[in-house]
Amino acid sequence: MTKQRVLTGITTTGTPHLGNYVGAIRPAITASQRADVQSFYFLADFHALIKCQDPAQVQQSTREIAATWLALGLNTDNAIFYRQSDVPEIPELCWVLTCMAAKGLMNRAHAYKAAVDANQEAGEDPDYGITMGLYSYPVLMAADILMFNAHKVPVGRDQIQHIEMARDIAARFNHHYGEHFVLPEALVDDNVAVLQGLDGRKMSKSYGNTIPLFLPEKPLKKSINKILTNLLEPGDPKDPDTSPVFQIWQAFATPEQTAAMRQQFAEGIAWGEAKRQLFELVNGQLAEARDRYEALLANPAHVEEVLQAGAAKARAYSKPLLGKVRDAVGIRPIR
Amino acid sequence: MTKQRVLTGITTTGTPHLGNYVGAIRPAITASQRADVQSFYFLADFHALIKCQDPAQVQQSTREIAATWLALGLNTDNAIFYRQSDVPEIPELCWVLTCMAAKGLMNRAHAYKAAVDANQEAGEDPDYGITMGLYSYPVLMAADILMFNAHKVPVGRDQIQHIEMARDIAARFNHHYGEHFVLPEALVDDNVAVLQGLDGRKMSKSYGNTIPLFLPEKPLKKSINKILTNLLEPGDPKDPDTSPVFQIWQAFATPEQTAAMRQQFAEGIAWGEAKRQLFELVNGQLAEARDRYEALLANPAHVEEVLQAGAAKARAYSKPLLGKVRDAVGIRPIR
Repeated sequence: MTKQRVLTGITTTGTPHLGNYVGAIRPAITASQRADVQSFYFLADFHALIKCQDPAQVQQSTREIAATWLALGLNTDNAIFYRQSDVPEIPELCWVLTCMAAKGLMNRAHAYKAAVDANQEAGEDPDYGITMGLYSYPVLMAADILMFNAHKVPVGRDQIQHIEMARDIAARFNHHYGEHFVLPEALVDDNVAVLQGLDGRKMSKSYGNTIPLFLPEKPLKKSINKILTNLLEPGDPKDPDTSPVFQIWQAFATPEQTAAMRQQFAEGIAWGEAKRQLFELVNGQLAEARDRYEALLANPAHVEEVLQAGAAKARAYSKPLLGKVRDAVGIRPIR
Repeated sequence: MTKQRVLTGITTTGTPHLGNYVGAIRPAITASQRADVQSFYFLADFHALIKCQDPAQVQQSTREIAATWLALGLNTDNAIFYRQSDVPEIPELCWVLTCMAAKGLMNRAHAYKAAVDANQEAGEDPDYGITMGLYSYPVLMAADILMFNAHKVPVGRDQIQHIEMARDIAARFNHHYGEHFVLPEALVDDNVAVLQGLDGRKMSKSYGNTIPLFLPEKPLKKSINKILTNLLEPGDPKDPDTSPVFQIWQAFATPEQTAAMRQQFAEGIAWGEAKRQLFELVNGQLAEARDRYEALLANPAHVEEVLQAGAAKARAYSKPLLGKVRDAVGIRPIR
């Protein structure tokens, strides 16, 4: 029996922060160890072009994200780790699927609809400033998934729709040209930790409230010291459940450590002390990986080599499948 | 000084007929001899998938069209003749350009608007039955053209809009990422012969009134005998200007032969005799090429080889250009 294939894409915009780590990277890296599934992880640089038209940022983010995942122990013997743009079969499949995808399907995509709504509210033309990239990226995403016939795609709730679109496109293709694609399923983990940022809102680049994952020790300490607190003095009992300090603590601590910190809050721990302990906890868990991260950034050729090896493994899947797809649609050698 | 680059795409649906020959193939093959331009001719099989979801037909049409152009003397030493799907840089560039193309631009495409109008007239949803292929093919067409930085693209009046869209996309890219693309120009020849079909309307597959280009002699004779005539008897003067027989004659004859036939019409040539002469003229001009065509169909491996050689020549252009485009947008090796 073939293993279940699980596919995860990582868009290469921005620098990974603690929220990404807790919510996405850490569980994915744990999953990469599983021997009973075949995991695919890819740097989605073609997707990055939709949101980010700054080439230096796409490049830097790709480098940082690749180094981050490797530093954190992504098992590249077991999992297949590649850069989307190293697999030329993907954009080609994307076109073939474009010919199968209903335009009406794209009209219903949340991201597109949100952009249209914003335009209409602003009194603009509905499609003002909207690129074909934003509009048609669910087709590229379908190609990403179907290219490897992934069974499961771990996503947040807001992404379930994309998996449904990939299923729809796959089903149309299968119906018309014969069975070629597995219908993928969204794998939604409702227990995924959502980390609060410095200001207590969800940690997110768009809020400017992030703590970058691999800040060196001193800036990390400084950043943690900036987490929002209230004016309660040392000795005043504090409410852990409304404190981002406690909430971030929880994301890194064992249940015992969490219970102990809850107790300290009740006993009126000083904010400074709570932050000192939080720094120690987070820094302790990230220090080794950070050293590996720095070493990887200092050795880009090695990272590139790892990605090339991953691309070769990925293309061992994508090339034969694209060959079958081409044959199915009638793109065949003259014979 | 670099040569002007002229690019022509041939969608691989259907079997070439006399109308295609006179209106498109014959002038293009003449142009392929020009030493002062670098001509590109490609079999647009990715485009074929939009219109044709019958794999056998895509395959057969590709074979027939490739053999047709070669049989008619396309100069593949001078011109570059390739199959779109043999150049993986094209779908990749297509995605990059998708991220640059305004959705509003696609909304204005004639083919899409016509489909929407038809839906609305039928009381359907505007996007009913419309695929993303139909909607976004101007982006693929832009990729076809920009991939080779073509200066000129010979098109019919109805296609000028597509060249303007390619210009728009190229200009946006250049503006944002620096000069990479030549802004292509449509080359519209208003003197292109439009051939009448068997029933006197424009010869077109959709009217079912075509004379296939390489019909064997007997079926060709039979087909020509079916051309619409009126009931005038031998000896009755006939009007050449309303007769498809004369109109097709004109497309193959020298000016002297045309003048002579006009005289015969005035003198009351019998329809049967006019058709006999027309058959002799057309058959005389196509017989040798038809033999070559049959020989090429009997030797598909040779045709494939020619296309592969063409793809290698095409990729000598597309690979370095895509390399520059990737670098421009930030898709770069880790370094």
